[in-house]
Amino acid sequence: MKAKRVAVAGFGNVGKGVIEILLQKQIPELKLAKIVVKHPDKSRPFNVDPELVTTDFARVVHDPEIDIVVEVMGGVEDARSLILDALQNGKDIVTANKAIIARGNEVFSLAAKLGRTIGFRGTFVGCNTLIHDLSLSAGRIRRMCAILNGTCNYILSHMSRRGIPFEQALKEAQEQGYAEADASDDIDGIDTARKIQILSGVINNTFNMPPDVPCEGIREITMQDIQYGRELGYAIKLVGIVEKGKDSATIFVRPVLVPHGSLLASVEDANNAIELEDDLGVVSALVAPGAGTYPTAVAIINDLLDIAHGDTFMMPTSNTPIVLNDTGDIETRYYLRLTVIDQPGVLAQITRILGDHNISLASIIQKEAVSAKSVSVIVTTYLVREKELRAALQQIDLLEVVKAKTRIIQILA
Amino acid sequence: MKAKRVAVAGFGNVGKGVIEILLQKQIPELKLAKIVVKHPDKSRPFNVDPELVTTDFARVVHDPEIDIVVEVMGGVEDARSLILDALQNGKDIVTANKAIIARGNEVFSLAAKLGRTIGFRGTFVGCNTLIHDLSLSAGRIRRMCAILNGTCNYILSHMSRRGIPFEQALKEAQEQGYAEADASDDIDGIDTARKIQILSGVINNTFNMPPDVPCEGIREITMQDIQYGRELGYAIKLVGIVEKGKDSATIFVRPVLVPHGSLLASVEDANNAIELEDDLGVVSALVAPGAGTYPTAVAIINDLLDIAHGDTFMMPTSNTPIVLNDTGDIETRYYLRLTVIDQPGVLAQITRILGDHNISLASIIQKEAVSAKSVSVIVTTYLVREKELRAALQQIDLLEVVKAKTRIIQILA
Repeated sequence: MKAKRVAVAGFGNVGKGVIEILLQKQIPELKLAKIVVKHPDKSRPFNVDPELVTTDFARVVHDPEIDIVVEVMGGVEDARSLILDALQNGKDIVTANKAIIARGNEVFSLAAKLGRTIGFRGTFVGCNTLIHDLSLSAGRIRRMCAILNGTCNYILSHMSRRGIPFEQALKEAQEQGYAEADASDDIDGIDTARKIQILSGVINNTFNMPPDVPCEGIREITMQDIQYGRELGYAIKLVGIVEKGKDSATIFVRPVLVPHGSLLASVEDANNAIELEDDLGVVSALVAPGAGTYPTAVAIINDLLDIAHGDTFMMPTSNTPIVLNDTGDIETRYYLRLTVIDQPGVLAQITRILGDHNISLASIIQKEAVSAKSVSVIVTTYLVREKELRAALQQIDLLEVVKAKTRIIQILA
Repeated sequence: MKAKRVAVAGFGNVGKGVIEILLQKQIPELKLAKIVVKHPDKSRPFNVDPELVTTDFARVVHDPEIDIVVEVMGGVEDARSLILDALQNGKDIVTANKAIIARGNEVFSLAAKLGRTIGFRGTFVGCNTLIHDLSLSAGRIRRMCAILNGTCNYILSHMSRRGIPFEQALKEAQEQGYAEADASDDIDGIDTARKIQILSGVINNTFNMPPDVPCEGIREITMQDIQYGRELGYAIKLVGIVEKGKDSATIFVRPVLVPHGSLLASVEDANNAIELEDDLGVVSALVAPGAGTYPTAVAIINDLLDIAHGDTFMMPTSNTPIVLNDTGDIETRYYLRLTVIDQPGVLAQITRILGDHNISLASIIQKEAVSAKSVSVIVTTYLVREKELRAALQQIDLLEVVKAKTRIIQILA
């Protein structure tokens, strides 16, 4: 077998891992043929043959000797042009670019038209092993629940374990290089949502990924919620969920309470995790680092190897849009934290409204007053439709005795 | 692509899952061509076209229309003959037969000579997804730690969670169909050892699997150990470990203490789990059912699909034996439960001997007397070479004041 000739565009954190593995591991199927960089004079973590390095993107794209282009430049516009040009010129593509793949239509349509391959395991590093195998298997994926953002998981697990405040945990995550360039993308759930868009496309075999999914981040999770959650036997995790219906899917990103002792609760630090249930009822779960130089580079190398071997490839083949179910129709359990005046009759007012909406309570705990003005009341419900709960809370939050917007967190049972 | 014609030999628990999927899922690459059974008149969970069923193993093996034989008969001798005959007659093989694959030399040598494929994901159902991908990837596996026996995990997790005795937990596991035909194979670690033999072959890319690996089961784990372990912050799990050295490997099966909150501790009931570290330092873990009709059937179907697609296949290619390191050279932490007379000076005698062997203690707790005659003393050590610890315990167990053999359990840190 002739080795595939690979050009790597980008020499940042991920690029350096890919280049290092290609140079040092001597993989017979893959030959590093070119490295394309914007700043050739920038100092690099290790020396590479200067002959390999070029700044001329156009030449690489038109070089008939290049078989596969690895796009790890980051950004959107330049990366997008490179991918489209390379496809037009007969190259296969491997990329870790979530922003481009989450809006997959353009690049996948072109690849499908030209019979080319786009490898994108690098966009969901922490779960690519499991998804890759299951998406090709006889048991199709029916439900997915995943922790997909290392920064958020770092923040939540360290707030919980060490009792440090949100801001300090975020700062540590940034210092350790977990956070995205703009940390808002992490903590507002945007990064998780992008991965969920991509994964929902894979699971539904469409490259017409949903352009938007309901998304709530972790900015408003307080130490109180973490502590009360723990007392009730739960940890808080930011998850993305995809649940396939008959002709539609329920897809969203939000913080949820998961039971202590469960696999998802055991996922610490910047790890990612994914739980999958297939249509035969078999549940598998994978825990792995969701980012980082080597994990991402290995995901990319695995794509390169699949292309080199001509192996069956995980690339969505249809262009059918996914119909999203209303999250108001989710039926699940909830944790509520109400902030109320500490006076007789308050609980009666609240429970009456919940009862009027047919919402059954699993537990209710009034905490000791934290200030002279208000106390927290923690409620857990049995199964209830989200719509119904939100209608009840709209009434409750208008009550004179309720002093702040009630916090709702889904309990994942 | 012409569909591969598949003969399934065996219509037991696993066979019925494979047959059901082949008949109902309409996988275009695979066509069920024959079902070979010993007892054609036995009642089956669903009806199959009588034309498909035969008792004539020889005819199937010589039928030029059959491309792949799935061996799910169980047993050793008949299954072995079938596999060898089918290979000789140009068929590829897919099997879930651990006993045969763990002594892989004969069948793999023949397959290699004839250029045929043997799929054996069905022999390590609970971790085949992760192993399959990583064994083909750029980051080679350096260390593996796995829970591979559902019966043992069921017993240990229910003893711990519900406080039920060993015998009751075993009975429940048998009633729920988790236990092997002979439960000793489960609880003595034999089943785990077979899977570890196979996985160590995969990890080392040799079909010359180690004929024996050091193996200790869970028969002697008492409720006391589970309770004391929990007080110290650990759960007890039966694990198999493979750690690659330069030209050798440390391989063994034994119960160990794993920290609460760790992924392995979160694995409940009959689930299996595997933690892998590759040579780039990336750690991934998978949790999945380790047996059962559908999980095993899906593993087999995935092998069939890989063969049908001509995909790169996870089959060891070398015949090099694995040199096993002495487990006496393991350096780790230990939990010790000593049974001693409740009188002054006893602890001094014990700690002196441990000190003489340079064994540092992390903790020592004397429990209240359970009988008039003896008390338990629980010791945890810092890192120590197993050889050294065993030498010390040999002396300790000879002391007049020590009333029972000291229990040692490795702490997995």
